Amino acid sequence: MKIESVDFFYLSMPEVLDIGDGSQDACLVRVQAGGLAGWGECEAAPLPTIAAFVCPMSHSACKPVQASVLGQALNDAADIERIGNLVRDRSLDLLQAEHTLSGIDMALWDLLGKRLSEPAYRLLGYPRAYPKLPYASMLFGETAESTYQKARSARSLGFRAAKFGWGPIGLGTVQADVEQFQAAREGLGADGTLLVDIGTVWRDDVVAAALRLPSLKEVRATWLEEPFVSGALEAYKQLSLQSGSVKLAGGEGCHNFHMARHMIDYAGIGFVQIDAGRIGGITVAKKAADYAHARGVSYVNHTFTSHLALSASLQPFAGLEHDIIAEYPAEPKSLATDLTVNHIHLDGDGYIRVPESPGLGMEVNAAKLGPYVVDAEIRVNNQTLYRTPRLEGL
Amino acid sequence: MKIESVDFFYLSMPEVLDIGDGSQDACLVRVQAGGLAGWGECEAAPLPTIAAFVCPMSHSACKPVQASVLGQALNDAADIERIGNLVRDRSLDLLQAEHTLSGIDMALWDLLGKRLSEPAYRLLGYPRAYPKLPYASMLFGETAESTYQKARSARSLGFRAAKFGWGPIGLGTVQADVEQFQAAREGLGADGTLLVDIGTVWRDDVVAAALRLPSLKEVRATWLEEPFVSGALEAYKQLSLQSGSVKLAGGEGCHNFHMARHMIDYAGIGFVQIDAGRIGGITVAKKAADYAHARGVSYVNHTFTSHLALSASLQPFAGLEHDIIAEYPAEPKSLATDLTVNHIHLDGDGYIRVPESPGLGMEVNAAKLGPYVVDAEIRVNNQTLYRTPRLEGL
Repeated sequence: MKIESVDFFYLSMPEVLDIGDGSQDACLVRVQAGGLAGWGECEAAPLPTIAAFVCPMSHSACKPVQASVLGQALNDAADIERIGNLVRDRSLDLLQAEHTLSGIDMALWDLLGKRLSEPAYRLLGYPRAYPKLPYASMLFGETAESTYQKARSARSLGFRAAKFGWGPIGLGTVQADVEQFQAAREGLGADGTLLVDIGTVWRDDVVAAALRLPSLKEVRATWLEEPFVSGALEAYKQLSLQSGSVKLAGGEGCHNFHMARHMIDYAGIGFVQIDAGRIGGITVAKKAADYAHARGVSYVNHTFTSHLALSASLQPFAGLEHDIIAEYPAEPKSLATDLTVNHIHLDGDGYIRVPESPGLGMEVNAAKLGPYVVDAEIRVNNQTLYRTPRLEGL
Repeated sequence: MKIESVDFFYLSMPEVLDIGDGSQDACLVRVQAGGLAGWGECEAAPLPTIAAFVCPMSHSACKPVQASVLGQALNDAADIERIGNLVRDRSLDLLQAEHTLSGIDMALWDLLGKRLSEPAYRLLGYPRAYPKLPYASMLFGETAESTYQKARSARSLGFRAAKFGWGPIGLGTVQADVEQFQAAREGLGADGTLLVDIGTVWRDDVVAAALRLPSLKEVRATWLEEPFVSGALEAYKQLSLQSGSVKLAGGEGCHNFHMARHMIDYAGIGFVQIDAGRIGGITVAKKAADYAHARGVSYVNHTFTSHLALSASLQPFAGLEHDIIAEYPAEPKSLATDLTVNHIHLDGDGYIRVPESPGLGMEVNAAKLGPYVVDAEIRVNNQTLYRTPRLEGL
């Protein structure tokens, strides 16, 4: 097959709120080859991501992503790796390119899986997929009481694990955070897996983080996620020496393999959290999963959007039996739900399974997406470089 | 002062060639406040960089850069740092944002310097600026003979140092590279400072790099630059253990302080090369210079475009007396030359000095830029988010 077309769709809720909810818009990618269509999703700001696909060349190492994708042969997994390397070489100085590549790479695995009638995880080399324990990924409530109610509701929906993050956490007093942590534990019950996400608000302030450790140990948090920005390796390392039973988790900001490796090598984390929609797609995420596995660091997906993104993000570690925790967006906006016809549901024991149908196993729900489509247009010197394609062309 | 407006100008040569020459287009930024204008330049793909400034918000940590800049107070250096932190927090998940911020940050220093009648380096805390030894930054010729001629011409232009990079280097046989290195040394003369730049083509292949070390030692190269991509810290480290008198140099790909720190902490480099047009501007570059200086790593600017970018890139280490080497674009396209009225020239001894006039000390040559202006337009849901502003509005 040859890659015939790559189409980007900018989708959005009618109103985007100033909250840490990444499901409010979406950057959907369709790749067509050999009469088939594959789908992916960049976990990225749609407009700059599209611009990185279509922009004019600046120089030999600052080319638009399309220069390395359109017309390329796509017959096996090695082709997908080759295309990714082309993008990284030719778009070396185009920062946004790795976010753009991420959705394309997913779509290539989806397409190749459909062509070869195999789920993506098998093409990645895993003989089978193991069930994952999904945690309800939720925002902290504005008050401890509302966090308690959210934790109760997660439990009642069948989740055995829940993560709370963002909202007011880390921004106020230590005592306010302690009350939030306790409310989350209380709502979740003594046997639930409790995860806490700080959303990088301490940047690299080890003292601010350390002040919360006693309470996190007391409520038996399994991990403390993103106390700092992804690059603050030394701050992570220092905190890890004091965090004891509470393992550090981070990595969602990684936009290439090297960054994931640095966190594993230098940051003292127990869990590396990779968003396949940012790191360069499933291909790079799998490389990070292999690297983490060999070094005793658990791999976890980062997913806060649709079930297309969820399926894509589960593939890279589908075959790792003991890396069992998986992020599961529990408060998605209707856009994220409407994006696919089928969904990945919890079974009676609270587990999820990666789809066994070809590719990513998710059907994009074009019929429902019309109201979410954002009309965008990019023109340069009277030429239209991008205009929102028609979704009907499915 | 309050920041009243931020305007982006996409400038380009009529034809952009598929070569490693970053001076073929430019992303110029003008910031206006208090009746003054400051100028900066993002070393970045213009269209995605502009899109990152104007795009709609995706969520609370994925906002357009303009949300953190327009209307902000600008009265002292602390305001510039504060604005940068706002951008990093609010645009955390917008990858291109740091390239967008870079040019804005330069313009803010230019503006503040004009307001306070001080050159930017003094506002950064340096009591004086020391002369720098500029190296002619050139591409390797397609043949060893043409590289020899280029080295001769650099010498005849008054340069005592020259760097050759990109072109065919590293892509063919070891012998072909050896001939290139020898031709460069021969053309430059025995007393010239010779620098070699591989342009990341070996990605993380330590063996490929090590095969060239004996020849680099023989021609007394001062540094071997970017044998690998910025993130390949372990590959750098391994190579540094064998490189002896040839120090490793790298860092131009760093788009935040953490990445520069990682190279200094983990990669065994002798020179850290920072592009103020990528790392987040002069503010972050100065932080990297301080960090490098404290650890015995030499700071060098990375500059391949205009003299506006050159002045901006010299400010962060202007006051470091012993970090003497500076990159100087020696084969700029006419756009890069025409971008400013004044230029930073070599003195009779082959040294350059950072301008002593307020701000960055460079006057943008609006009258000459008309032919280079690229008309660009970004529309979303029938609203124009960006349209090339008029340069006459100076």
